[in-house]
Amino acid sequence: MTLPTDPAANLATLIRCPSVTPAEGGALSAIEAMLKPLGFTVERPMFKEDGTPDVENLYARRSGNGPHLMFAGHTDVVPVGDEAAWTHPPFSAAIANGEMYGRGAVDMKGGIACFIAALARHVVQKGGPKGSVSLLITGDEEGPSINGTVKLLQWAAAKGEKWDASIVGEPTNPDTLGDMIKIGRRGSLSGTVTVNGRQGHVAYPHLADNPVRGLMTIVDALLNPVFDKGTKDFQPTNLEITSIDVGNAATNVIPARATATFNIRFNDTWDAETVQAEIHNRLDSASGRKKYRKGRKEPIDFELGWKDRPSHVFLTRDDKLIETLSGSVAAVVGRKPQLSTSGGTSDARFIKDYCPVVEFGLVGQTMHMVDERVALADLETLTAIYQRFIEDWFG
Amino acid sequence: MTLPTDPAANLATLIRCPSVTPAEGGALSAIEAMLKPLGFTVERPMFKEDGTPDVENLYARRSGNGPHLMFAGHTDVVPVGDEAAWTHPPFSAAIANGEMYGRGAVDMKGGIACFIAALARHVVQKGGPKGSVSLLITGDEEGPSINGTVKLLQWAAAKGEKWDASIVGEPTNPDTLGDMIKIGRRGSLSGTVTVNGRQGHVAYPHLADNPVRGLMTIVDALLNPVFDKGTKDFQPTNLEITSIDVGNAATNVIPARATATFNIRFNDTWDAETVQAEIHNRLDSASGRKKYRKGRKEPIDFELGWKDRPSHVFLTRDDKLIETLSGSVAAVVGRKPQLSTSGGTSDARFIKDYCPVVEFGLVGQTMHMVDERVALADLETLTAIYQRFIEDWFG
Repeated sequence: MTLPTDPAANLATLIRCPSVTPAEGGALSAIEAMLKPLGFTVERPMFKEDGTPDVENLYARRSGNGPHLMFAGHTDVVPVGDEAAWTHPPFSAAIANGEMYGRGAVDMKGGIACFIAALARHVVQKGGPKGSVSLLITGDEEGPSINGTVKLLQWAAAKGEKWDASIVGEPTNPDTLGDMIKIGRRGSLSGTVTVNGRQGHVAYPHLADNPVRGLMTIVDALLNPVFDKGTKDFQPTNLEITSIDVGNAATNVIPARATATFNIRFNDTWDAETVQAEIHNRLDSASGRKKYRKGRKEPIDFELGWKDRPSHVFLTRDDKLIETLSGSVAAVVGRKPQLSTSGGTSDARFIKDYCPVVEFGLVGQTMHMVDERVALADLETLTAIYQRFIEDWFG
Repeated sequence: MTLPTDPAANLATLIRCPSVTPAEGGALSAIEAMLKPLGFTVERPMFKEDGTPDVENLYARRSGNGPHLMFAGHTDVVPVGDEAAWTHPPFSAAIANGEMYGRGAVDMKGGIACFIAALARHVVQKGGPKGSVSLLITGDEEGPSINGTVKLLQWAAAKGEKWDASIVGEPTNPDTLGDMIKIGRRGSLSGTVTVNGRQGHVAYPHLADNPVRGLMTIVDALLNPVFDKGTKDFQPTNLEITSIDVGNAATNVIPARATATFNIRFNDTWDAETVQAEIHNRLDSASGRKKYRKGRKEPIDFELGWKDRPSHVFLTRDDKLIETLSGSVAAVVGRKPQLSTSGGTSDARFIKDYCPVVEFGLVGQTMHMVDERVALADLETLTAIYQRFIEDWFG
């Protein structure tokens, strides 16, 4: 029986499964086939919810006498985009100039392939870790994230599963393998502001009230002043206007209404509630709801709504987890990784409610792009880092 | 033979013709039937252009030995809107509480009905004016205005028609009959500015360039400072942002591009060319194309485009025309009308290239609205004013 000790072979198998969200594409079955010879018990729960696609997930556990480490990830991938623009077909796992091409190569079938190879090598070389290892793999990270990690964690916890630490294998390195471990993430919140004016003819502006002027004031209040200057662990909070829309095609008509949509990424100065309160305050002041605005007697008539649920900010404070991983990276690549909380949200925001979690994987540069690819050397390096981490963390 | 001396009867006939642009609806035929007994020669040229509806028009002339007065107007009307919301059906010419209801009652079948009644009374009482009178009536004023007044003027001029003065019968009075004569109009110009940014993920704003920030700067430069404070004859130039559009539905994406559309109504401080140059200058400065912007090294990448053709500003300086009309109003209603250049564009902007033109008609309050209507007393008053004007102008 061949054990899955070669990360490139593991990854090639996974890339050849066309698992664009929400399709399983054979990817979870391939993982199951790799893990069973390593002594894992594998379960494949499917989650459903009205109005969302059914999603297959995988939970595999190799039990032992000691602490419990969870590796989390996803086998689903984003669409290939313009397939004709790829140098090699996106599900072919073609190798050229020392790189393997394919959708999911770095985000994040590559991380899964390396973790499995690291475990397999440990089993071959040292008989496997003393404690328990589980893999929590979803097929719904790039999609609505409803029938994936959230439900998989609830399902496993309901069965009595408990974890001591988790690594998420997302591509965390900006340029070079070993650059960066993510030890937390900013929170995220989206909202919409609509300003109501009074429609009218452009030739009679005194009979109308152009909502674009009010929206300019509102947008300025959303953007300025800066929310904070960043904290010890986090970048500054940042708000982006993601859309402004009026949709008036008549050039002789002053429109009735104008809308701005925004997203804010906030650090640990805030939580979702205090950010919402701050934005309410800013808009109440700027609009004249709270104080008299210069040169304008009526307050701006606006409505503020929040979209979806907020993603909460978190920071992992488990020194053993962070230092062991950081030390494993340094031992393999010869330099300490940066401990960062930058970037977007990930499934770590759900896992942090169950156990300390950090993220470390491949180099993210080609993720979501045409010609997503990974250096074969990086696969070997990441496998070595994961193996070293498993050895040291279980100690 | 009954002559059309009753403006209310004339108007009821016209309202009952459902002549929503571009439909003739029987309205031009009704006018032809009214004018022929008064000694008019009537022609009904139809104009066509690819991609626009064919439009019927009417040109009627009663020749005499003296100056030539043109009355200009349109029989087409805007759609009725929510027909169920009308107190009386919009093409019924129902009378209630001394008012006649119907689409076009004031804009501007009412003006045509009164001018025809005034002429008919003059013919009955004094044998008709000494000079020539023509009616230039289009069915395409509320629509694209392509197969209407512009072509009708060209067609008549090509036949050798020359006019000494023109009255346009649009509803010019804001509140009470006799309030206001329009002796000119502001120019109008529409444009679109697109700001190009760099698309990206909201979590990595330093890798993207949000075009909304640039558009805020551009919009501020369009709106401020004010273009002028108005002139002796004109209101201040005014710019309105008629739409802002991004159209990005993804709350985690910084958009690539943002667009603002604007319309400017400009007075005789400017012409279309100098307004365009001013706006180019403002945007070049604000964007940093012309000078270094504080805190930003790259200029805002924008494109400015102009929509349609500009409407040129004009001011009529024919003292005889203005003073005779003003005197006729004063003689009938007991007070001098305001000489104004306010409001939107009208077909007078085309006529001004052929002869001096002023505008005077009914009270505009209900134009384009549900329950458009006119006081029967106003029909009598306007008929009296038009008759007095015909007598005095030909004098």
